Amino acid sequence: MSSMSAVRKIKEAAEKGANLVALPECFNSPYGNKYFEEYAETIPGNSTKTLSEIAKQNKVYIIGGSIPEKENGKLFNTCTIHLFDIDIPGGITFKESETLSPGNSLATFEVLGFKVGLGICYDVRFAELAQIYSKMGCHLLVYPGAFNMTTGPLHWELLQRGRAVDNQLYVATVSPARDESASYTAWGHSTVVDPMGEVIATTEEHEDIVYSDLDFEYIEKVRNMIPVTFQRRKDLYEVN
Amino acid sequence: MSSMSAVRKIKEAAEKGANLVALPECFNSPYGNKYFEEYAETIPGNSTKTLSEIAKQNKVYIIGGSIPEKENGKLFNTCTIHLFDIDIPGGITFKESETLSPGNSLATFEVLGFKVGLGICYDVRFAELAQIYSKMGCHLLVYPGAFNMTTGPLHWELLQRGRAVDNQLYVATVSPARDESASYTAWGHSTVVDPMGEVIATTEEHEDIVYSDLDFEYIEKVRNMIPVTFQRRKDLYEVN
Repeated sequence: MSSMSAVRKIKEAAEKGANLVALPECFNSPYGNKYFEEYAETIPGNSTKTLSEIAKQNKVYIIGGSIPEKENGKLFNTCTIHLFDIDIPGGITFKESETLSPGNSLATFEVLGFKVGLGICYDVRFAELAQIYSKMGCHLLVYPGAFNMTTGPLHWELLQRGRAVDNQLYVATVSPARDESASYTAWGHSTVVDPMGEVIATTEEHEDIVYSDLDFEYIEKVRNMIPVTFQRRKDLYEVN
Repeated sequence: MSSMSAVRKIKEAAEKGANLVALPECFNSPYGNKYFEEYAETIPGNSTKTLSEIAKQNKVYIIGGSIPEKENGKLFNTCTIHLFDIDIPGGITFKESETLSPGNSLATFEVLGFKVGLGICYDVRFAELAQIYSKMGCHLLVYPGAFNMTTGPLHWELLQRGRAVDNQLYVATVSPARDESASYTAWGHSTVVDPMGEVIATTEEHEDIVYSDLDFEYIEKVRNMIPVTFQRRKDLYEVN
């Protein structure tokens, strides 16, 4: 997926009524340590300016997947959030340590009154991040991510269903389409999971847009049905 | 399953070479608030004495599922661990609050050099409990539990696979067999999951013994393959 392809897909989704559009991890770059330097951009830069404009023109919120970002000689795997003409850079990653540097802050933002927490790819493996986002009041977690042909079938869906059911919120993952000729072959399967841990929208490995209407009132219903969110034993444990 | 039936099954498992045998939740009682008072025992009492003797005779470790326990006028859903002739009562539960009182301590014990953490049923929904057991060095989590016909198909396997993959350890759940005529119909499906989140032994809803050989060296292999256990960002979050 190039920036031009991303622009076309964002327009298409906006025309179909999407309010929030999320792009995959590294949507402007092949995924691989040898590519990050070459494809890295500054923020603001080409990709983020384009996303910012397209968000404004189409009146949608965009979670800009991620791009390799170069700042002060360091490379980051950075997710930008474009809310019309506001840029909130916020990168979180814990891996790719050969070439990339980790972020040091959690990233949340509000869309239409609902709170969204962001992670990139490998972040989904860290239960604590989702737990803290949940404690912060997030209704939806979005993970742009490129799992591969090994970890994808094993863990991609399991992890997001686990995050959803444990924290009783929506979880969306956004993967690049699979390119068998790439050095890193993505699993694909962008998916949306509801607060009961059920897959409510998904796709296969090809390029696609996954649409889902989220019912944020359902979060409260689930939390009343299975009241784990209110029953945590803070006298015995707490995530901070 | 009565105590007599439990004794037969423990003998059978021991004869087939089991080192550690785990019984289901409330193995001596129907599951239901109206039954707990009637079936409650003291500890030591009939069921725990029987388990203690049978453990000694058969040279196996027994995780005594759970029994309703009466102590000082309060009812508990208690799991006892019988190591030959040592009794370590330790009950953890967070529900059944109409009739039962919660425990206030975590329960771990060692079997053949491996550390086991215990939860009962609904405890499996609390990610933090498993995370703390993992931090304490547990290799295996055992949850005697009776999910039902609603929560069973939705969450029974998902939760245990989630606990296993997030904490990179073995998880075993032990359910009563399904009795369609009971007021509370158990889901069944006792299962063992490995540190990659894969189901390595399971059964259907009928009475059965589920056998599994656990390879504790595999835990280290998994933790080296996917090093989340070593990469937690304690500067950003911690479970205590």
